[in-house]
Amino acid sequence: MQRVLSCFMSRDMKKADKIRKGDIRSATRLIRDIEDNVPGAKSTMKHLFPFTGKARVLGLTGAPGAGKSTLIDALISRYRAGEKTIGALLVDPTSPFTGGAILGDRIRLQRHAEDPDVFIRSLATRGALGGLSKAAGDAIHVLDAMGKDIVFVETVGTGQQEVEVMNHVHTVLVVLVPGMGDDVQALKAGILEIADIFVINKADRDGTGKLYTEISNMLDMVQAFPGGWRPPIVNVGSVFQPALFREHVEQLSQAIDGHYEHLVKNDLLGDRIRRQTLVELNEALRSCILAPILEKLVKEGEIERMVDKLLKKESDPYTCAEEIANKYLR
Amino acid sequence: MQRVLSCFMSRDMKKADKIRKGDIRSATRLIRDIEDNVPGAKSTMKHLFPFTGKARVLGLTGAPGAGKSTLIDALISRYRAGEKTIGALLVDPTSPFTGGAILGDRIRLQRHAEDPDVFIRSLATRGALGGLSKAAGDAIHVLDAMGKDIVFVETVGTGQQEVEVMNHVHTVLVVLVPGMGDDVQALKAGILEIADIFVINKADRDGTGKLYTEISNMLDMVQAFPGGWRPPIVNVGSVFQPALFREHVEQLSQAIDGHYEHLVKNDLLGDRIRRQTLVELNEALRSCILAPILEKLVKEGEIERMVDKLLKKESDPYTCAEEIANKYLR
Repeated sequence: MQRVLSCFMSRDMKKADKIRKGDIRSATRLIRDIEDNVPGAKSTMKHLFPFTGKARVLGLTGAPGAGKSTLIDALISRYRAGEKTIGALLVDPTSPFTGGAILGDRIRLQRHAEDPDVFIRSLATRGALGGLSKAAGDAIHVLDAMGKDIVFVETVGTGQQEVEVMNHVHTVLVVLVPGMGDDVQALKAGILEIADIFVINKADRDGTGKLYTEISNMLDMVQAFPGGWRPPIVNVGSVFQPALFREHVEQLSQAIDGHYEHLVKNDLLGDRIRRQTLVELNEALRSCILAPILEKLVKEGEIERMVDKLLKKESDPYTCAEEIANKYLR
Repeated sequence: MQRVLSCFMSRDMKKADKIRKGDIRSATRLIRDIEDNVPGAKSTMKHLFPFTGKARVLGLTGAPGAGKSTLIDALISRYRAGEKTIGALLVDPTSPFTGGAILGDRIRLQRHAEDPDVFIRSLATRGALGGLSKAAGDAIHVLDAMGKDIVFVETVGTGQQEVEVMNHVHTVLVVLVPGMGDDVQALKAGILEIADIFVINKADRDGTGKLYTEISNMLDMVQAFPGGWRPPIVNVGSVFQPALFREHVEQLSQAIDGHYEHLVKNDLLGDRIRRQTLVELNEALRSCILAPILEKLVKEGEIERMVDKLLKKESDPYTCAEEIANKYLR
């Protein structure tokens, strides 16, 4: 038994080692395993964890169609020019209807596909509550442990889950587009608060000035910004005006670098990493405590029996849950 | 001790009794306690649970500004004309920036405020993952136990949490508006799948026909609808054309009633309620198992100690979580 165990250990260590050396196939497989919640993935992650924490992680979030992939594509080119190695994680819930979105993103980022120093993966949710954020956190660690200097994380939409994914990054870019119903009143709560930088994309469109003013006015109302950082608003124009677009992307990358320097200079990076670590620990607890209990209850048919009792109004959800807690908790 | 306990019990039973008799102050207080996660709320909920399951629960979801409150207002008038008693729950994340949204909704629904058979409450999230859906489920039970014939539930936005809230209703209306970037491609995954009825609101606007065709084409691609129900698409025009608007609302209420009849006739209502019950049980488990462990770890300073270890790379999140699982699970 001991031998079997140590055998398993060394296999996971080997996998971790390969990933650290940049092996794309191993990294791809591990990210898929994380996505599918394969139990072995945890063990490999344990071996990778000590080698994480070197990458700068940049998050982009915003409504579908806001042009986040185009921005990432441009930023990749910008940082590649500076010899940085890149990882990118496209986080998107899968849907039988809109499943094409991911494909579209992949195609848009195609031109970096040949570059061995750019590694791009999609991450789909399996619908588990909180599962997406945990999977994203682990996948970021994989890219980080591979030695990527900069890791981009893109989420679509502005729901609770997307906001949570942004817990795992150092700098959050909230990408808006004028005239898409994206006025500040319509923005979902939670998304404004996490922005380190606001990007008004497709800023050649009507309504750019209005959107800029709205965000600016909103920021004016904030009494004190956490860490003393007032999020800048960066306009990025159309890709069809390449010279201007490149100039804007350059301004955006300066804003990004500026935010990172602010974090470092003011001793805020440590706080942010501490908060990220807490989030990860929470997510690991959910996966290590609640998930196994649920699995067992389902396997034993206990869940079905309880649902039957609830349907007959013979019990209530809280009494059932307390019974289970009494059974499984010390 | 026994006496103290029975004292508590009877107080909660009394509260539950008052709510069942329609006492608005007690119901309001309980919903606030649910929102704030006050421990006593669970006990009152236990006493209410046997008296739930009579109300028809209708959910409306869609982007901010889609006009959901206006629709609910009109539907309330429609069902009040039929002597039905009404509960309405407006679920909205709170935010220092967009906190005004709820107030706006309340004002919009003001004209029913004087009607003693209409009870409208707002429910705000406290940010806890999954907490919003659990709170919404409990609050729906409160309105149900109060004896309301029809309970409306409105969520803003289309994130994971909003989709989860819709697990607690019998009929889901997805409300779209033409020309708001709400075209089908831009719709978030998850929201299309839960629609029992599509409502194109403000259907006097440009782009209505295009949006209708898009949804219709999308539905044409579906091989088999669950339960054999193809979601109808209902256009609702401007409130400023009152006669037409009323006609449209009448058509909408017929679609709503049609869906309910379909559920009943095809023996699908039971399945739906079963699924809802399973969701509730899951949410109760999270609240009764994970929450107390986390609370204890925070109180004992154990979380901080673990975060320190993680920051020094002396351990990894999974190993930490497994240690906690070993300590707390039997």
